[in-house]
Amino acid sequence: MERIFSVPLKGGNYTDVYFADDMKQVNALVEGNSFAVADENSASYLPECVPSVVLPSGEKEKNWNSVDKILSAALVRGLARDSLFIGVGGGVILDMTAFASSVYMRGARLMLLPTTLLAMVDATLGGKTGMDYGGGKNLVGTFYPAESVIIYPGTLRTLSDKEFRCGMGEVVKHSFLSSGTDLSDFLSDNLEKVQQKDEESLREMIRLSLAVKIEYITKDPEEKKGIRGALNLGHTFGHALEALRGFSLSHGEAVAWGTVQALRAGKAMGITPSDFADDGISLIKRMGFDCDYTIPEEEFAAYCNAIGKDKKKRDGVVKFVLMEGQGKPVLTPIPENIVKAVVCH
Amino acid sequence: MERIFSVPLKGGNYTDVYFADDMKQVNALVEGNSFAVADENSASYLPECVPSVVLPSGEKEKNWNSVDKILSAALVRGLARDSLFIGVGGGVILDMTAFASSVYMRGARLMLLPTTLLAMVDATLGGKTGMDYGGGKNLVGTFYPAESVIIYPGTLRTLSDKEFRCGMGEVVKHSFLSSGTDLSDFLSDNLEKVQQKDEESLREMIRLSLAVKIEYITKDPEEKKGIRGALNLGHTFGHALEALRGFSLSHGEAVAWGTVQALRAGKAMGITPSDFADDGISLIKRMGFDCDYTIPEEEFAAYCNAIGKDKKKRDGVVKFVLMEGQGKPVLTPIPENIVKAVVCH
Repeated sequence: MERIFSVPLKGGNYTDVYFADDMKQVNALVEGNSFAVADENSASYLPECVPSVVLPSGEKEKNWNSVDKILSAALVRGLARDSLFIGVGGGVILDMTAFASSVYMRGARLMLLPTTLLAMVDATLGGKTGMDYGGGKNLVGTFYPAESVIIYPGTLRTLSDKEFRCGMGEVVKHSFLSSGTDLSDFLSDNLEKVQQKDEESLREMIRLSLAVKIEYITKDPEEKKGIRGALNLGHTFGHALEALRGFSLSHGEAVAWGTVQALRAGKAMGITPSDFADDGISLIKRMGFDCDYTIPEEEFAAYCNAIGKDKKKRDGVVKFVLMEGQGKPVLTPIPENIVKAVVCH
Repeated sequence: MERIFSVPLKGGNYTDVYFADDMKQVNALVEGNSFAVADENSASYLPECVPSVVLPSGEKEKNWNSVDKILSAALVRGLARDSLFIGVGGGVILDMTAFASSVYMRGARLMLLPTTLLAMVDATLGGKTGMDYGGGKNLVGTFYPAESVIIYPGTLRTLSDKEFRCGMGEVVKHSFLSSGTDLSDFLSDNLEKVQQKDEESLREMIRLSLAVKIEYITKDPEEKKGIRGALNLGHTFGHALEALRGFSLSHGEAVAWGTVQALRAGKAMGITPSDFADDGISLIKRMGFDCDYTIPEEEFAAYCNAIGKDKKKRDGVVKFVLMEGQGKPVLTPIPENIVKAVVCH
């Protein structure tokens, strides 16, 4: 097994990220006094011989009811503060397992095994945990980094094309945010091999994508300096669409759509260079996303209301991440007429 | 208003502790974008002109249902991540408000206004938040220190004798744990003035008691080094009694009773000097606690089971805090026959 990153956390701890070659290597990592959580889709990747709870799948299950099931199962099994919670699945399961482990006896240990591309490049690093609340995404949660993240790319073989594409939405977001062009160059040259799930290409893309995320989160672990906020590129537009559509949309599709809106808004406001915006939008389209979806005008008020519930609101003003160019995010409010122009037309 | 402590936290932040002379000083502290939480007993101390939610009183309300009410009220009022949660009340309200603020959008700001002696000397420092879960006390929670703690001793004038005594249970615990004898000497000399609620004596006692707590928590902010565990003197015995009695007992009464059991067990095991144990027990009795309560033998199995659910369990073994003498706590398992000998006889 190869350790690809050791991400420094405050207090002198680390999140260690590994590539596993097969499930045997995953099983070898698990110790006594562990407890695993999966959903119906990821249950086949549960480590052997570990007590576990399997939840129903889907974003609509990301609520207290599910977190409660995790906590009560842990309690029944007699887990202590030094026991290990193991989350096995996509972002929903990982976020909830991490949230449960962060509040169980004020903090148990945590290992994450992402089984979707989106989770591999997004949900496992940075310590964001949470559940949906009161109609808003991730409105309740904590910052609680895992002590280890095990990426077994073999789990991607059984992933649906739709789910795979969702992960690509985050990867392309990282390619814009990266200070260098390694990831964008890699994507331009290798998109087909990646889409055919060539394992070597996948590993390289995951590694490059994680490197960008690590660059941002280590500078701003708890989103207090405005640096890490850049990782929310596409999320303010995207989350509001998800809220409006009752989570019928996948997170990756929403973020890809939101990133397109952010590029279009930035271009309209003279912040994003036209070339950069157009190249970005065409790369997102090449990945197979529906970027032309528009909000019907009669729903625009409800859409704005959903934007107003965004966690990123400070001093009462919602700020969006826009791009001044490669690796140059800025946080800025957008006039409502421009929001309307990009999402409704 | 007098700032009496500025407690360093990891990451360069501080919890500032103030003495307020009246409610005017408290009101002057509150800023826009705040939201206060109280229960029926503490509602009269809510700051003016701040939106608030008032919950039913009592330990049995310390559950997700109440935390949910706090979170949903905050959401309805449009609170953002940089808004201020203000907890006003005893330990139950402060723990739940702090827990809610710690998970609201992954962490809002937090101010605590304790209105009971127990909360003033115990619940406001150290960042422990939580709610009861699955029959166990504080099994779900976080570490999330407040940015400010406002102690207005005037609130103690309306406190019942029983509630006041509960706070004294924690104070006497701190007097044993202190490396010096300032607090024990003060208590021996001034117990009557304190019990008459003489304000100058109360301030001095609260200040000395907080100094002991600060000594322990700054050495071990997240209870990972076994130092802070000493603050649990009396808690393992006491929590199990509370669990057995369905929380009909107050926390301070349970801790005082538990401290007596710990002194008796330490004496029986040859760990605690007889003089120290006897003097300690008689000081606790002087404060008016029922120290002679015994667990009926037929309930001993259930009592042991409640001990087994204790958060302080590590590697499957429950460790108790016993005293080797003034300011010398040790963490050790206790043989079951000794537990039985002290709690059943």
